[in-house]
Amino acid sequence: MAEFRLHCDAISGNCYKVALALRLMGCDWEPVFVDYMAGATRQDGFRDRINELGEIPVLEHAGRLRTQSGAILTWLAARTGKFGGRNEDERYEILRWILFDNHKFTSYYATLRFFIGIQKTAPNAATEFLRGRAAAAYGIVDKHLATRPFLVGDAPTIADFSLAGYVYYTEETGIDRAAFPHIQAWRERIKALPGWGGPLDLMPGTKPA
Amino acid sequence: MAEFRLHCDAISGNCYKVALALRLMGCDWEPVFVDYMAGATRQDGFRDRINELGEIPVLEHAGRLRTQSGAILTWLAARTGKFGGRNEDERYEILRWILFDNHKFTSYYATLRFFIGIQKTAPNAATEFLRGRAAAAYGIVDKHLATRPFLVGDAPTIADFSLAGYVYYTEETGIDRAAFPHIQAWRERIKALPGWGGPLDLMPGTKPA
Repeated sequence: MAEFRLHCDAISGNCYKVALALRLMGCDWEPVFVDYMAGATRQDGFRDRINELGEIPVLEHAGRLRTQSGAILTWLAARTGKFGGRNEDERYEILRWILFDNHKFTSYYATLRFFIGIQKTAPNAATEFLRGRAAAAYGIVDKHLATRPFLVGDAPTIADFSLAGYVYYTEETGIDRAAFPHIQAWRERIKALPGWGGPLDLMPGTKPA
Repeated sequence: MAEFRLHCDAISGNCYKVALALRLMGCDWEPVFVDYMAGATRQDGFRDRINELGEIPVLEHAGRLRTQSGAILTWLAARTGKFGGRNEDERYEILRWILFDNHKFTSYYATLRFFIGIQKTAPNAATEFLRGRAAAAYGIVDKHLATRPFLVGDAPTIADFSLAGYVYYTEETGIDRAAFPHIQAWRERIKALPGWGGPLDLMPGTKPA
């Protein structure tokens, strides 16, 4: 059995954040499929035994389960000594961007993708609300990346892995990605890191055939 | 001048999270009014000079500005040695709940409050989406608090201050607070902590007369 087991579904960018970190940190890990689309994370058994928050990813290590992608990334960086920032100032900035990602950047975009790109919901006040908020968050990140290669400092960190969670998925959302050229360039820089793989590369067995 | 200056608006529960922490940690601090409702945080000058995320709270200390409530709380707990958890396990749990708060608990509720309680928006698909998500997050926290006095361990931490950000505001949201009795009891436990004050008690000068 691998040292780390990631309970995940390749459809989830929040899972991909951790899968990408495990890969780029060079950890010994394997994915374990959780059928998110069939509602597995929202059942009482999952909530009671695995994660009361009703979410994946869940990282299993040394007999213990850890949840919430941002908390897992922070813990993994401290444990491996990789991608966690070089000093207290960088660690502050990393946490700030991971919180912003959970609060706005991933949150609005991922929910929009779920409604429009996966459930094929017709546009309504909720999808327009999400699209406006997602575009605003994209604008903030695009401006930030206009003058630097990665979110914090001059090297990739777990902040990049967190915000990159959903940028390699291709479902329609109504967000024009070309309007955010610096995010597109940053996406390619992360893609060029040694060992990089996309969601289905890293979590192949987690997608039912 | 006080050691800490909190740029804030009493209408913002995200500001209240930090104000409450500063008060309960016994810090020497003062509030500085930022007119959120007039759009001060969304102007280019604010974004360029103070916070590129376009948000308050902003904490000024030793000539430096720190932003994002969860990051500020984590930094303050480390600096003061108070309310930050007693060991690594508790610190993991604290971060997990602060991330959940930013992702779901505060995020959905605060936006719902803004639309329904402040802007007096008529119910639409966006407010119903937010109400459903906020109620689900409230249910998770209510269940968690059914068997413990505070979110992590048996004493208050910055996780409690984060999730308590909006629980003392009284604007209408369409969420029935009585349906979450354990949150109500926890709210009263925090209120009973020595030095506790509500948003307007702690940020009095920040509300224009």
